[in-house]
Amino acid sequence: MKATVTITLKSGVLDPQGKAIEHALGALGFQGVNDVRQGKVIEIDLDAADPTTAEALVKDMCGKLLANPVIEDYSIEISA
Amino acid sequence: MKATVTITLKSGVLDPQGKAIEHALGALGFQGVNDVRQGKVIEIDLDAADPTTAEALVKDMCGKLLANPVIEDYSIEISA
Repeated sequence: MKATVTITLKSGVLDPQGKAIEHALGALGFQGVNDVRQGKVIEIDLDAADPTTAEALVKDMCGKLLANPVIEDYSIEISA
Repeated sequence: MKATVTITLKSGVLDPQGKAIEHALGALGFQGVNDVRQGKVIEIDLDAADPTTAEALVKDMCGKLLANPVIEDYSIEISA
């Protein structure tokens, strides 16, 4: 089973990497870029009996390791 | 308009960050984790006449800055 976890900074949290990308795009001459935010996407290949079990397992992984609940939001997508 | 660019390492390219996460999950007692791959997700808020123009612009951004075509794949999602 494959789980895709998308982790992004909560809105309102300063994103220095996003700002760096935004400035670099401007320097390269790209117009009309209002805001850039960068996050992480983590793909996990795991053994689980069913999607519900897999989602619960991955939620536990997010709570213990993958995401910082104070400044980050995360979403989980499970595919067979 | 909002563009979401998902950038992942090509399969076959060693992913040290993914390996580090995989080992950490094992150390935390998670069983059944076969493989972990980490990538980037970049959300861009930009002004564009229509989704087709936005996609072409973002594709150009990926070619010039956001993705390394030698070792990375990317996908672009445009939403209003």
